[in-house]
Amino acid sequence: MEIFGLLDGLVMYAPVWGEYYYKALEEFYADGVQYLEFRSILPTLYDMEGTVYTPLDTVRIYVETLERFKSKPEHKDFIGSRLIYAPLRNTDPKGVLGYIEILKQVKANYPDFLAGFDLVGQEELGRPLREFVDELLQVPEDIDFFFHAGETNWYGSSVDENLIDALLLGTKRIGHGFGLVKHPVVLHMVKKLNVAIEVNPVSNQVLQLISDFRNHPCSQFFADGYPVVISSDDPSFWKATPLTHDYYIAFLGIASQHSDLRLLKKLALNSIQYSSLSVDQKAEAQAKWQIKWDEFLDYVNNVQQNGASHSQHLD
Amino acid sequence: MEIFGLLDGLVMYAPVWGEYYYKALEEFYADGVQYLEFRSILPTLYDMEGTVYTPLDTVRIYVETLERFKSKPEHKDFIGSRLIYAPLRNTDPKGVLGYIEILKQVKANYPDFLAGFDLVGQEELGRPLREFVDELLQVPEDIDFFFHAGETNWYGSSVDENLIDALLLGTKRIGHGFGLVKHPVVLHMVKKLNVAIEVNPVSNQVLQLISDFRNHPCSQFFADGYPVVISSDDPSFWKATPLTHDYYIAFLGIASQHSDLRLLKKLALNSIQYSSLSVDQKAEAQAKWQIKWDEFLDYVNNVQQNGASHSQHLD
Repeated sequence: MEIFGLLDGLVMYAPVWGEYYYKALEEFYADGVQYLEFRSILPTLYDMEGTVYTPLDTVRIYVETLERFKSKPEHKDFIGSRLIYAPLRNTDPKGVLGYIEILKQVKANYPDFLAGFDLVGQEELGRPLREFVDELLQVPEDIDFFFHAGETNWYGSSVDENLIDALLLGTKRIGHGFGLVKHPVVLHMVKKLNVAIEVNPVSNQVLQLISDFRNHPCSQFFADGYPVVISSDDPSFWKATPLTHDYYIAFLGIASQHSDLRLLKKLALNSIQYSSLSVDQKAEAQAKWQIKWDEFLDYVNNVQQNGASHSQHLD
Repeated sequence: MEIFGLLDGLVMYAPVWGEYYYKALEEFYADGVQYLEFRSILPTLYDMEGTVYTPLDTVRIYVETLERFKSKPEHKDFIGSRLIYAPLRNTDPKGVLGYIEILKQVKANYPDFLAGFDLVGQEELGRPLREFVDELLQVPEDIDFFFHAGETNWYGSSVDENLIDALLLGTKRIGHGFGLVKHPVVLHMVKKLNVAIEVNPVSNQVLQLISDFRNHPCSQFFADGYPVVISSDDPSFWKATPLTHDYYIAFLGIASQHSDLRLLKKLALNSIQYSSLSVDQKAEAQAKWQIKWDEFLDYVNNVQQNGASHSQHLD
């Protein structure tokens, strides 16, 4: 996992940090993504004047950069972006208490930018959620969890069983949830509580959880109507597009042969429905999305009309 | 699939056919298998005198050979063996009607040797069950189906959807059922109707349905209490033991880390419970099995007592 730190020295230089985020927003937007919730450990930045930065400064630069991006006329269809504060799970209970203090500061200063909280880093190398239950229960009620859990195919391991604790802690979404299919009671509750599963197909193959996408557990999530959002984990590391490659795999490699545009539409809408946005914000987001979707259908219909063999009109 | 025909010229020589089956029974018994239901296409045999053989002769030789095997004192703990008549699915409706005539003859002449009916051969190359529904419904009520179905990871294909027709036709077990996890309604009915799933782990890997056993759908069958019997498909082709290697994979590669001897016991008992035997025959079979199981536990306990670190007694 050393790759995660490879560019730290460059991107954590404060003047670069904002540009780094701006570039990511540009790439996502160019890929057709209108709204982005991302995880960050909130690294401590530096500059050449010796300024002392705090995690809150890292958030401030995100927020200022996002405003700059949104103010551009060419980004008028962009909906927005929010942060899931997700520091490393390879710590101790005292460390988690420290995280929660930072989390509260972010919430107090940038309430509309904060989506929620998670713990990241390879689950096997960090501690399972159950070791931090006392601390995590101290997180204020108005901050939601978006836990990574079950990014494994080791059935019955502590990583696998993070799924149980993530659910019991009230997570709003599950990051990965690759092992979910081996936990029928958790699955039942996921559906009942309407907890979305963030599925990252390309990541799962690169990190060798699965080799043949036809066996990906997401086919069962599709089959049985679980709430799925397609995500891309760490696309820059494997030179994938920000999100399109993952949609491509989900549609061609994982979904049923009977699937069609309705699946793509549902998946796009799920990304709004299972976001951290408020009800009003979701309505506004969906209106912006609808414009782009209609443009896409016009494009598809025009291609068909100019082609020879199809006459079915989509709407 | 040419390998299936490679030895036909040798084993279909009538004097060899019986020895071929006898040898198989010996190898299974040596591997700890006390009862065997096997599929056969009932090939037409030949000899050097130009005798005309029928499929019924093929069955007669099976039955005579089985009696010879069972009569040996060293096979006193052997329970028995039965035939699933399973001709090739790569035929037409008229061909299936021909199969059914042979099936009725076998039932009339060797009622206690016949377990039931199936169609075999690579599902993709043959026809789906739904093309033979009219014919299959003509099979007499007292003959059971044990259909191969869903030996695929192509979600939504006709092979995948054989699962639906197998169930609607009243199959008592499903051979493979690899795609079952993508069909929640079929899964629900499988549990409700107590239809056993014949899982063949080694075969699934050799035939490239799965590379990493941790992703095998059987882990979900275990997790949610579906009726599973562990089988070995075509072990001689890949030099596996008759059944032990498949049990080994099921236990070490597929089951939860929390699994223990109780899973092995349950799987062995399932093989009797979901067999074609009558209630009385099952009771008798289980009594013979219990003797061997008790011997196995004595062995395990002795190993432990002679070892240094364990004192827990199993029963």
